[in-house]
Amino acid sequence: MGPGPSTVPQRILNALGSPTLGHLDPRYIEIMDETCVMLRNVFQTKNAITFPVSATGMAGMECVITNLMEPGDEVIVCVNGVFGNRMVDVMERAGVTVHRIDVEWGKIFSDEMIAEAVERHPKCKALGIVHAETSTGAHQPLESVSKIVHDAGMLFIVDAVTSLSGHTLKVDEWKIDAIYSGTQKCLSCPPGLSPVSFSEAAVEVSERRKTKVQSWYFDISMLKDYYKGSGKRAYHHTAPVNMIYALHEALAIVLEEGLEQRIERHAVMHKRLRKGLEEMGISYIPEHSLHTLNCVSIPDGVDDAEVRNKLLNNYQLEIGSGLGPFAGKAWRIGLMGHNANQANVDLVLAALRDCLN
Amino acid sequence: MGPGPSTVPQRILNALGSPTLGHLDPRYIEIMDETCVMLRNVFQTKNAITFPVSATGMAGMECVITNLMEPGDEVIVCVNGVFGNRMVDVMERAGVTVHRIDVEWGKIFSDEMIAEAVERHPKCKALGIVHAETSTGAHQPLESVSKIVHDAGMLFIVDAVTSLSGHTLKVDEWKIDAIYSGTQKCLSCPPGLSPVSFSEAAVEVSERRKTKVQSWYFDISMLKDYYKGSGKRAYHHTAPVNMIYALHEALAIVLEEGLEQRIERHAVMHKRLRKGLEEMGISYIPEHSLHTLNCVSIPDGVDDAEVRNKLLNNYQLEIGSGLGPFAGKAWRIGLMGHNANQANVDLVLAALRDCLN
Repeated sequence: MGPGPSTVPQRILNALGSPTLGHLDPRYIEIMDETCVMLRNVFQTKNAITFPVSATGMAGMECVITNLMEPGDEVIVCVNGVFGNRMVDVMERAGVTVHRIDVEWGKIFSDEMIAEAVERHPKCKALGIVHAETSTGAHQPLESVSKIVHDAGMLFIVDAVTSLSGHTLKVDEWKIDAIYSGTQKCLSCPPGLSPVSFSEAAVEVSERRKTKVQSWYFDISMLKDYYKGSGKRAYHHTAPVNMIYALHEALAIVLEEGLEQRIERHAVMHKRLRKGLEEMGISYIPEHSLHTLNCVSIPDGVDDAEVRNKLLNNYQLEIGSGLGPFAGKAWRIGLMGHNANQANVDLVLAALRDCLN
Repeated sequence: MGPGPSTVPQRILNALGSPTLGHLDPRYIEIMDETCVMLRNVFQTKNAITFPVSATGMAGMECVITNLMEPGDEVIVCVNGVFGNRMVDVMERAGVTVHRIDVEWGKIFSDEMIAEAVERHPKCKALGIVHAETSTGAHQPLESVSKIVHDAGMLFIVDAVTSLSGHTLKVDEWKIDAIYSGTQKCLSCPPGLSPVSFSEAAVEVSERRKTKVQSWYFDISMLKDYYKGSGKRAYHHTAPVNMIYALHEALAIVLEEGLEQRIERHAVMHKRLRKGLEEMGISYIPEHSLHTLNCVSIPDGVDDAEVRNKLLNNYQLEIGSGLGPFAGKAWRIGLMGHNANQANVDLVLAALRDCLN
């Protein structure tokens, strides 16, 4: 119950361990195509370019940035935790001039801040923001931000690593142009893939590039011929076949439960956890908290490492430590995918009660 | 028995499907450290920076190139097939000026050609070459090339995707500065990781860079703090935990068999296959053939696709088609890792005899 990887259900582990097919085998291609169809459902998008990048979550960020941005471009990046900072770093490595706007860790960005930033930096090609900041537990609303960004003629880039299938996230309705996530959070799949989706507008921008995408591995102009499946299926790289089996099974589980029901389950379990923690006098750090990642203040006088070790050794229960300014001051309790259930919530509450007494 | 992924033994699939630990869990770190120790054994190196990149084989190429090369650098790339071409592309995307030298597909580079190239382009930082060209089956000797390259003061970069644990490959003895491989060939592990190793000289070059590595995901200056394990274990990205289990098991199997014995087994099986094919009047395309990938001419009047379909449907047996100039003219029969055994060799010979009569 840390910040991920979350616990992987046996059904997904069984799929993962199935015999490895060739990456161009017709049966494998079928599984991959089905995976992309299910991913579109879970992202709530019709975007043709929706596929899992063959590497972990951060590679999704790099795939989005290297395809959309060119050296000399300008961008606004919203930073309120580790992953906003990462986005700045990856943008700069792509030769992009970054105008960063910061709020205190744990806070979110208001529409006014976004409006001011796009007005101050009107030449930017895009604005990047983190939907679910795993380092602080802050939950950033996106719909109104998207409108401001598009009114200014910019692309809207979203980090959804810790929200996909755990929070409401409507790629088409909210007009998100490029989004990336990870498999090891609310999808309850092992780490190893990074689902991404690009809007038509984003694909057009990438097609109008003057320079080649600096990464061969992440270049969607070639990847699309493998994943999109229009016409001839062109070999690009060898896909991580078994990881695709696992993601296929994970997405099937999401859709069997129902995406809305799954998101509602995360909300219900978050409320239950929050109530129990607050009854113990433990308070949440972010005002707008994620359901999937609960970042709380460590009570005064409590030894961070001692409690986490006791949870691990006596209860086989992992919770996350604080990062950056929250190191030693916060715990991060994940309620992601399979893990967001009543038994887990009640166990972590009971275990914390035990450790704190 | 195609050009990979090769068949994965059940032991490795079982390891792959084991419960997912956290990427900073002490037990997982132990498995990862053991994996790196075994990788050093299989690469025959003491290089500290030896680890599996969290993505498939081509990511290893990108990791090596983006860490060692900077915009404005010059490099010599030897091209005799698909993967030499790829190296040129990845180098150019890193802003490097490429001096390519070409020989006909299926041929290898002589010491004279290498010597002439380094003399003509003395300012180059490195020379890149493919040890085992999967697209043509050509087996490039490396030892004498390495000497010429180092005498010219350049780094020696090697693609060993289809040779690691299938052919003799001595990273330290042959003074290879940077090397990458894949898991899905002679290691008989599913695709998803790319083992790499950097010599001390290569690491020094990367530490003297004037610019940041253009890829955050592949930057060894950060990755080394996660994999090297000297001092505090710094979080970089979420490692593909289950794929590491699989590679750990695959390497354990290599070392149980014995690296030399395994390489000898590939040689013996290649000879057996070659004898059988030549008795049927089927000839090898490259003069210096790999043991692991057997690229042969399709006999006159034989329908390529018909035979491959018959092998697949009647024998559940996959062999590879020709690429580039060899499309429709060659078959590529893999003898990689687990697959390089007498039963498989005799089956593919019997099946081909059946299909060709």
